[in-house]
Amino acid sequence: MIVILKPNHNPEQRESLESWLRELDLEIHFSQGQTSTILGVVGDTTTVDIGRIRMFDIVEDVKRVQEPYKKANRKFHPDDSIIPLGAGFVGGDEFTLIAGPCSVESREQVLTIAREVKAAGAQALRGGAYKPRTSPYAFQGMREEGIAILLEAKAETGLPVVTEIMDAVDLPAFEHVDVIQVGARNMQNFTLLKELGKLNQPILLKRGLAATIEELLMSAEYIMANGNEKVILCERGIRTFEIATRNTLDLSAIPVLKELTHLPIIVDPSHATGVARYVRPLSLAALAAGADGLIIEVHNDPANAMCDGAQSITPEAFAELSDAIAEMLPIVNKTSIPVR
Amino acid sequence: MIVILKPNHNPEQRESLESWLRELDLEIHFSQGQTSTILGVVGDTTTVDIGRIRMFDIVEDVKRVQEPYKKANRKFHPDDSIIPLGAGFVGGDEFTLIAGPCSVESREQVLTIAREVKAAGAQALRGGAYKPRTSPYAFQGMREEGIAILLEAKAETGLPVVTEIMDAVDLPAFEHVDVIQVGARNMQNFTLLKELGKLNQPILLKRGLAATIEELLMSAEYIMANGNEKVILCERGIRTFEIATRNTLDLSAIPVLKELTHLPIIVDPSHATGVARYVRPLSLAALAAGADGLIIEVHNDPANAMCDGAQSITPEAFAELSDAIAEMLPIVNKTSIPVR
Amino acid sequence: MIVILKPNHNPEQRESLESWLRELDLEIHFSQGQTSTILGVVGDTTTVDIGRIRMFDIVEDVKRVQEPYKKANRKFHPDDSIIPLGAGFVGGDEFTLIAGPCSVESREQVLTIAREVKAAGAQALRGGAYKPRTSPYAFQGMREEGIAILLEAKAETGLPVVTEIMDAVDLPAFEHVDVIQVGARNMQNFTLLKELGKLNQPILLKRGLAATIEELLMSAEYIMANGNEKVILCERGIRTFEIATRNTLDLSAIPVLKELTHLPIIVDPSHATGVARYVRPLSLAALAAGADGLIIEVHNDPANAMCDGAQSITPEAFAELSDAIAEMLPIVNKTSIPVR
Amino acid sequence: MIVILKPNHNPEQRESLESWLRELDLEIHFSQGQTSTILGVVGDTTTVDIGRIRMFDIVEDVKRVQEPYKKANRKFHPDDSIIPLGAGFVGGDEFTLIAGPCSVESREQVLTIAREVKAAGAQALRGGAYKPRTSPYAFQGMREEGIAILLEAKAETGLPVVTEIMDAVDLPAFEHVDVIQVGARNMQNFTLLKELGKLNQPILLKRGLAATIEELLMSAEYIMANGNEKVILCERGIRTFEIATRNTLDLSAIPVLKELTHLPIIVDPSHATGVARYVRPLSLAALAAGADGLIIEVHNDPANAMCDGAQSITPEAFAELSDAIAEMLPIVNKTSIPVR
Repeated sequence: MIVILKPNHNPEQRESLESWLRELDLEIHFSQGQTSTILGVVGDTTTVDIGRIRMFDIVEDVKRVQEPYKKANRKFHPDDSIIPLGAGFVGGDEFTLIAGPCSVESREQVLTIAREVKAAGAQALRGGAYKPRTSPYAFQGMREEGIAILLEAKAETGLPVVTEIMDAVDLPAFEHVDVIQVGARNMQNFTLLKELGKLNQPILLKRGLAATIEELLMSAEYIMANGNEKVILCERGIRTFEIATRNTLDLSAIPVLKELTHLPIIVDPSHATGVARYVRPLSLAALAAGADGLIIEVHNDPANAMCDGAQSITPEAFAELSDAIAEMLPIVNKTSIPVR
Repeated sequence: MIVILKPNHNPEQRESLESWLRELDLEIHFSQGQTSTILGVVGDTTTVDIGRIRMFDIVEDVKRVQEPYKKANRKFHPDDSIIPLGAGFVGGDEFTLIAGPCSVESREQVLTIAREVKAAGAQALRGGAYKPRTSPYAFQGMREEGIAILLEAKAETGLPVVTEIMDAVDLPAFEHVDVIQVGARNMQNFTLLKELGKLNQPILLKRGLAATIEELLMSAEYIMANGNEKVILCERGIRTFEIATRNTLDLSAIPVLKELTHLPIIVDPSHATGVARYVRPLSLAALAAGADGLIIEVHNDPANAMCDGAQSITPEAFAELSDAIAEMLPIVNKTSIPVR
Repeated sequence: MIVILKPNHNPEQRESLESWLRELDLEIHFSQGQTSTILGVVGDTTTVDIGRIRMFDIVEDVKRVQEPYKKANRKFHPDDSIIPLGAGFVGGDEFTLIAGPCSVESREQVLTIAREVKAAGAQALRGGAYKPRTSPYAFQGMREEGIAILLEAKAETGLPVVTEIMDAVDLPAFEHVDVIQVGARNMQNFTLLKELGKLNQPILLKRGLAATIEELLMSAEYIMANGNEKVILCERGIRTFEIATRNTLDLSAIPVLKELTHLPIIVDPSHATGVARYVRPLSLAALAAGADGLIIEVHNDPANAMCDGAQSITPEAFAELSDAIAEMLPIVNKTSIPVR
Repeated sequence: MIVILKPNHNPEQRESLESWLRELDLEIHFSQGQTSTILGVVGDTTTVDIGRIRMFDIVEDVKRVQEPYKKANRKFHPDDSIIPLGAGFVGGDEFTLIAGPCSVESREQVLTIAREVKAAGAQALRGGAYKPRTSPYAFQGMREEGIAILLEAKAETGLPVVTEIMDAVDLPAFEHVDVIQVGARNMQNFTLLKELGKLNQPILLKRGLAATIEELLMSAEYIMANGNEKVILCERGIRTFEIATRNTLDLSAIPVLKELTHLPIIVDPSHATGVARYVRPLSLAALAAGADGLIIEVHNDPANAMCDGAQSITPEAFAELSDAIAEMLPIVNKTSIPVR
């Protein structure tokens, strides 16, 4: 950590700051130049509150050198984390395809889609039972009943189930869910993150619409610091001025995250673009950029989907995409191939 | 609502779309041109799911004419809403100053600041008991104990209390709180919004970091549609590429919101900029732009504040700001003056 | 084009608007509903100034149906444009690798790199002679002398040359340049675009840092409307709040542009990320997303590059990337393979 | 400047970096901690190319302490710069109103508006003769003829003239223009900036749509480093995801710029919002935030304006705004009052 001091500080002020820092077991190295004075602060600054230092009158600016997260940090955990997903895994050499409808709408719909995506190579089934909807007048999901349907589809197909939670109060309904998803709008719902940190199930954590990569990792850290280290990160687009797509998929985040963290990263091209016909090219791009998997909306009847039909691809399109992925896997660092 | 059809559609497809629209009690007007075909859809389209229309194969694009919110819409409620705040009000001719520390840190701290901001003209006391913090290692707030301290300060000074809730599970602790605040990160925590809609207390709803003005109004609609129409909106900066300030305060949102909604709008210059010395100019700017009030962080000892000291002004600076505001009030449309 | 009228307009006002529209050879279809009145305006609205319509007192809003560009529009030119590049082409089935140093620094440097990138499969040589630099104190390029060096490298290796122009006044120096590049900061330098429209050389047009996809196409339209239809588009990252990479590479723009325009699209992963080690994954991602080529910074001694060394890869890394691309080409829609 | 070294560097590498820095007359202070090694680099680092340092293999990161601009920096020029404008000034205690049509459309139009805005208190006349238009099919301005009309209006009213240049090639036409404006899209047209640096006329430099405050100052530095220190900065909105206004006016930039630079800052609420009825509240907000002036579009017949009529206010609205400004001036730090 670097602390830049104001030009005309007095020795007492500096001593006061330095002793505050030393109490945190930090070492201080002093650099006096003509126009600026710098304190180099070394030691474990991960958990130091940078705002507190800024408040000392003599401080002009503070710059971090160390990342403010530990458990998610690759520096302290150089090997890739491999997260269990049903009988398989996410991360490492694996490339994982998670597919299913945006919303659970009926037993028949989910079972049909589950069979089809399984046949097409999906390793897990997604489906929304609790639905975060911008409008209070839109369909809000089948809730507990929806989860029961997903679990029935799991029983039949063997596909583990990934579904979104909106509030810790609903946790009892998620007991048998394989992976609990935290949506983009809840990425900084810290109460929820803490509760998920007490569970044993893997958490799929989506990046917020305006979240930096560092903030995504801080939210992962919340879950991990509370005891649950099974976190799967998900890039799903950030909000920019561009309106041709719903959000701007940030594929650069993949190599950046691969450096900063050991956690696996999957990509959601369906929500990122909001347009079914862009799902295929961006899925292949995500794979080529080094993602550990994809979560894709598939609907057997997109025109009658109860939400986000516009971004759902058909089971046939998903099967073709799965084939293209299988063809590309050997070229990137992934050796596993979706079973089909 | 305007539906643009693809060039080569057949009559059956159009009939299918039109009958679907007619079932929603909507009228259809048809325009056939050389290169495009347009359906003008009129009637109450407020609660129509635009995504469903997009899914019809023959639809090229859909554009809304009506806003997707009703209770928050000025068209259906032309007069300003006036929201009770303790013995006073927010909205209409009033200009409301809410002030206090970022976090409740101790009984003495809160009582001291409460007395000082009251003396300087504040009409309400703010203070965080439940703290949303990006890092799991940062101070998380005094919770129930913090609220008890705020209520003690209210008992002594008469200032109504504004404090933030993070999860519906904590609602019992907010029973005697005057205004319940929803933070930027929770603006789309729909479970929380629904629960707040069942209460009788005013809700101060902060705009999310990447939320559009329309989304802010949709979140207000969630609260209102569930029964609680006492919503105060708060602009607190949006995230952009600019790094000189923590966020970019969007003061244009004030005149825009004044047109679109009857709800009062206040501004938080402290969180928007993150820098104490920018609070005064942006407070005056917010007033000049037509805001109904300000929520400002004031700390008697910013250098030792447990969070966000860098953005807190001293009670003295607050008093000077309050004087400048009083001087400016008659020039804008506000006739009330902070009592001092 | 859709014109939404205000609720209480009088017939004279409407007649005045309608006759103005009819003078532009546009047809009008009228839809009267309970809460809104809509005019459907059909005909060639490509070049209608939407701002003029907004000014009629009775107009509440105007929404475009047709894109505001013609020559760049795939609707009027369904087949891919194939742009000549030296003895080869850009677009269609081709995948084009353009490589070279950020800046021309010396004869020896350029010749060495040119030989190496050619051996590694590059089809063209890039290199900056006129350098747009944020700081007036930074190296501004070798200008005419730099172009002479590039042309010497072309004479030796046969690689066509791509280099950036900053102002129309410098055009004489670009007479023998194969492709003239317009940088992101000049994307809306309309004087320059008009002048380039009078030339016969292909133009590589980079998307501005805050330009929408539509604005990029409008800038292409400027060049094309002035007579030069040989435009190659280049996605090079847009500015967002994310700071882990210099810009956010918008790969979704590729499938979007492929729909909207017939012009080829290449990607610049070097400037987009600003980090050499992210160039490879994002190059492969761009290819997988459907790009027609890449423009990559290669430097034989990045540590001593006079600008942007941090984003330059070595000739060895470029050769490995070229091999990976060759392996991936048959999987995407590209059949040509860099000669190596 | 702070240089953070990689954990396992060898002494030779460090020596090589240190000697490179010493050649630039910089002093080095070394801090060795357990997990990081830091070099504190002191001296005049204003013009050091940070990218060069990043290229040393042993460097993990570099952080600036000093701003990369000098002539525009308030540290080296603590007093406000006062820029001449006709017989008056911009900056210091002055508050300057610049008003006029978006485009020069005819002699009569300009003369009428000039008389009216003068009567309403404007100190300068604006009007576009060379028009940057997104579409090649839109009206491109009256060019030299337009400037002649502006100068005729100046001769009659005495109002100095502010008008935009698009390319250095047009400079001869600007000989008698009082203030030459650089538009947002040209903020980083470095060739143009250098040429303007050789002139004696004041330059009104608009912030680019995606330009940071630091980049705006770097562009000012380009002009100043070439000899012309008479630069007026202009905030005119940045591009964000919000679509209710054309751009997001960043009024926080005013207090930030007041700290960082001695140059005056004016605000353009007309282009920022694109909506005439938001001009008044944001003009007053800009004044309250500490701006040195406003540049406002005024048109006597907005409905028939040839460009951007939607954002132009009438002369009557301008006169009312001018009165409100005059009333507010004594409250902020401005003592001068528009003469009316």
